[in-house]
Amino acid sequence: MLLRMSTLFVRTLREDPADAEVASHRLLVRAGYIRRAAPGIYTWLPLGLRVLGKVEAVVREEMAAAGAQEVHFPALLPREPYEATGRWTEYGPNIFRLKDRKGNDYLLAPTHEEMFTLLVKDLYSSYKDLPLTIFQIQTKYRDEARPRAGLIRGREFVMKDAYSFDVDDAGLDASYDAQRQAYQRVFDRLGLEYVIVAATSGAMGGSRSEEFLTPTAIGEDTFVRSAGGYAANVEAVTTVVPDALPYDDAPAAHVEDTPDTPTIDSLVALANERFARPDRAWTAADTLKNVVLALVHPTGERELVVVGLPGDREVDLKRFEAAVAPAEVEAAGDADFAAHPELVRGYIGPAVLGPNAPVADGAERTAVRYLLDPRVVPGTRWITGANVPGRHVFDLVAGRDFTADGTVEAAEVRAGDPAPDGSGPLELARGIEIGHIFALGRKYAQALGLTVLDQNGKAQVVTMGSYGIGVTRVLAALAEAHHDEKGLAWPAHVAPAHVHVVATGKDAAVFTAAEDIARALADRGVEVLYDDRPKVSPGVKFADAELFGVPLVVVVGRGLADGVVEVRPRVGGESVQVPVADVVDEVAARVSALLTGSANAQA
Amino acid sequence: MLLRMSTLFVRTLREDPADAEVASHRLLVRAGYIRRAAPGIYTWLPLGLRVLGKVEAVVREEMAAAGAQEVHFPALLPREPYEATGRWTEYGPNIFRLKDRKGNDYLLAPTHEEMFTLLVKDLYSSYKDLPLTIFQIQTKYRDEARPRAGLIRGREFVMKDAYSFDVDDAGLDASYDAQRQAYQRVFDRLGLEYVIVAATSGAMGGSRSEEFLTPTAIGEDTFVRSAGGYAANVEAVTTVVPDALPYDDAPAAHVEDTPDTPTIDSLVALANERFARPDRAWTAADTLKNVVLALVHPTGERELVVVGLPGDREVDLKRFEAAVAPAEVEAAGDADFAAHPELVRGYIGPAVLGPNAPVADGAERTAVRYLLDPRVVPGTRWITGANVPGRHVFDLVAGRDFTADGTVEAAEVRAGDPAPDGSGPLELARGIEIGHIFALGRKYAQALGLTVLDQNGKAQVVTMGSYGIGVTRVLAALAEAHHDEKGLAWPAHVAPAHVHVVATGKDAAVFTAAEDIARALADRGVEVLYDDRPKVSPGVKFADAELFGVPLVVVVGRGLADGVVEVRPRVGGESVQVPVADVVDEVAARVSALLTGSANAQA
Repeated sequence: MLLRMSTLFVRTLREDPADAEVASHRLLVRAGYIRRAAPGIYTWLPLGLRVLGKVEAVVREEMAAAGAQEVHFPALLPREPYEATGRWTEYGPNIFRLKDRKGNDYLLAPTHEEMFTLLVKDLYSSYKDLPLTIFQIQTKYRDEARPRAGLIRGREFVMKDAYSFDVDDAGLDASYDAQRQAYQRVFDRLGLEYVIVAATSGAMGGSRSEEFLTPTAIGEDTFVRSAGGYAANVEAVTTVVPDALPYDDAPAAHVEDTPDTPTIDSLVALANERFARPDRAWTAADTLKNVVLALVHPTGERELVVVGLPGDREVDLKRFEAAVAPAEVEAAGDADFAAHPELVRGYIGPAVLGPNAPVADGAERTAVRYLLDPRVVPGTRWITGANVPGRHVFDLVAGRDFTADGTVEAAEVRAGDPAPDGSGPLELARGIEIGHIFALGRKYAQALGLTVLDQNGKAQVVTMGSYGIGVTRVLAALAEAHHDEKGLAWPAHVAPAHVHVVATGKDAAVFTAAEDIARALADRGVEVLYDDRPKVSPGVKFADAELFGVPLVVVVGRGLADGVVEVRPRVGGESVQVPVADVVDEVAARVSALLTGSANAQA
Repeated sequence: MLLRMSTLFVRTLREDPADAEVASHRLLVRAGYIRRAAPGIYTWLPLGLRVLGKVEAVVREEMAAAGAQEVHFPALLPREPYEATGRWTEYGPNIFRLKDRKGNDYLLAPTHEEMFTLLVKDLYSSYKDLPLTIFQIQTKYRDEARPRAGLIRGREFVMKDAYSFDVDDAGLDASYDAQRQAYQRVFDRLGLEYVIVAATSGAMGGSRSEEFLTPTAIGEDTFVRSAGGYAANVEAVTTVVPDALPYDDAPAAHVEDTPDTPTIDSLVALANERFARPDRAWTAADTLKNVVLALVHPTGERELVVVGLPGDREVDLKRFEAAVAPAEVEAAGDADFAAHPELVRGYIGPAVLGPNAPVADGAERTAVRYLLDPRVVPGTRWITGANVPGRHVFDLVAGRDFTADGTVEAAEVRAGDPAPDGSGPLELARGIEIGHIFALGRKYAQALGLTVLDQNGKAQVVTMGSYGIGVTRVLAALAEAHHDEKGLAWPAHVAPAHVHVVATGKDAAVFTAAEDIARALADRGVEVLYDDRPKVSPGVKFADAELFGVPLVVVVGRGLADGVVEVRPRVGGESVQVPVADVVDEVAARVSALLTGSANAQA
């Protein structure tokens, strides 16, 4: 393959695009790989499309090696199957909906569980047909509230989605593991570092779920890991619940005047000043903070809830949202407080919340739902709001003086928190989600009536898994992992070409020699990008080569008079002068080494 | 490649699907290549996807060979560019429109002229950057009023669309010809008979346009050709206009009572009975029929028009619609006639139409627009309606007694009509449109401001071409051209496999031998579909093989005891017994011959 810069449809930019926050976005646009067509929607130019094709090819090969068969579904789908599983509503504003000319409802599919389930139902009927794993590489749509970071969170993107179908749980486990291993091979081959973390299933449903994250500071997902091998995204971290404490000897709760203490800090300061205890000072961890939030349910219904948690922790909205999915979370506003005058801002306490709120005889309960952090176990004692301005209650004992409608994993996870599996303290890191695998179980098969007859002729609901790789996002993650301040720096197996031949100067002999080298390399199966532009300065050509990120650069220029050309890797490694006669062999050997020796180990 | 029927995700059907009208639809569904997901929207199963991939590969290779570079645009596009060219409105109900969560308008692109134009404007600025041809193979959307015939007229489909950009007309001609030749190579390689016909540009605009049609009785496009080499779709046929006739000696027009003659036939019969002329009988061709139709303009405005044409011809609505595009055509209804009392059904004549209608002093003209068939040249004499029930006017002379607002190509084209280029009488045939090429000219570049600086530093509006191949429709056309009553019969280069190995019976030795043959062929690079199902009868296996349409079938069964297996082509050619030891060589040689010798000549 030989691409010529003189005719290649590309234009590089020296300036960063105004809307680009991250390196992959900035450099993919500047190097002419992609162009923005609308927010979160991109056009692929020839160089970008080549890289995308290579990423897809690796995914496709590993899916085939894992026994998955390729199919292809429409992106434009009728409402009915998504209605049957409840997702037409659950997706809320996150999917694109439309009507056809007859007024029928359609959606642009964000994921295809329903359609795969119905197709298997259409084709198969016996346990003998299973196990089955089928996949597609396909354009998907999500109407993200905040499309950002270029390809990392787009509204039209390419995904590989696979679905497994088994007759029993052991089969699902095997199918899940086969996909999990295929994912490891995909990311290893792509040279993309990754961490596998426990995840929540969210709107997808199901029993077991793991994410593949590639660690990077610009990642929008936070995950935790322990030295002992635990790893999870923050949404999936479960709090290590302390034992309940005896409270028979605890003093009775007592309300105190605490003027001007609407914040935890002001309250703690006042408590230490006015209600000092002998053994140790009060800290924020002794206070029970009650945070008012609004849930927006998929039906559109808005519900106020209060989360009670130790005052030294914030509510992590992503954790809370994962816990209450498919509801979305919003801040509570003035109208909410106006509708609930019992909620005294800065002084909210359990006495007016959930099961603790007094109910007039014969009246319906109107108190807002109250959810507690799992750390607030029976016997723990708290300073918390007394529901009147300027007053707090002390020694309020959980389980004795108040209770709740349930617990919720909403508190932030902090470095040093214990891993739930006892494997030591957690450390926090950030990453980009590049894959997500779900043991869905029978939710979709049940909703859509997918059964097969077992050995005894009895109908069994099929159990399913669902496995996604964000193909365009993987490409962006590769760009994040492989670039420097000058531009992209692709691993050889995904680069748009293996070698970038640059002819410099105006000497016709240089262009003839460069052309010969480029052709000879292409004839040897090397993918060559040849900068044959006659009137472009060496500086511009070198800057373009650095932006493009082809792994090997061959410069044909002044050295030619001495019979040498320069061979230099895009990153690392030394620039060397190679005799013209040897350069094709030398470069072909280097390319071969790059392509075979590039498997990366897992992080 | 080795696909095993025991695990292949497929199920064949013995019955035709209820909604299938044509062979390709029927057989692609029955053979498990595709499944309907919604009207005009299909899912691709593994065998179908393999064929689709092969068709795409041929298209891609020939585009590359013609110097076109591949890009990929989104399918979900913002309204603005389509607004700028007027097509947001012009497409009327034929495109899918939607809003995102912020209320912005989007469409699912039916074709991408606007986006390609804007991308070139974004990247290029000099005549030196041109010529350029770029293409994509991409999913397109049209909200067809009547999706039909499976893949032939779908609402989500795959298209190859290419666009050329040139600085001058000579460049556009060269780019157009390069694509035209690439299309010929594509269809030749695919073994698809085709005819290139002159076409109208319709809503696309532009100066020159040709369609590639594959002739088939089930085609929805009618085209004409002459022995002398003229070919056009009926919309593009222009009428051979007779010379004007002298009318100085013509008698004056005279109105006659013609009771009960609301039809042409009744009028002609009465004319011959009551107003017989000496030289020859009156025929329908002597009457001027005035047909009332409604145009619906893209703006939604409805306009009544009357088409006047010789009474022996019907209005061809597709021709009329092409002539008045982007307006759509509807029948006139009672409300229309009520609004225009001057239109007396069955007796409409020119006197109340267009420029002939009397206008009261100072009043605005309210008569409906009157368009004439080009055959109604000055001096022709007609019997036509006198605008009162039961009366017609005779000897009404065009140009003397009436005129019109213009001419229109709305009359049906008939076999035997003269070709416009004088190359003899036309014959009519039907076909499926598989490609369409347009010399667009400057319409889109003008609307979207795409200019480049020429040698003199002067801005020049770029001239463009647009070139489409309906990839999924090509696949359906191949199935139409290559099937028999038993099933599909693919040419080797697009078949989902080259060889279908069938193991019959229950003898383990048969399965061992068949497996060895299948593997040995796969090792030689032959694509093998192996029916290894242990408990399926030979009859079912043979029926499936006939449905699938793999070009060579190898049957391993009873003959194995005598050391032979059967090799038979799917269609034509004889079944032969081949010694087991020779079968791999024999079959590999036959596959190679099929793959190399299959170029088809143009029709």
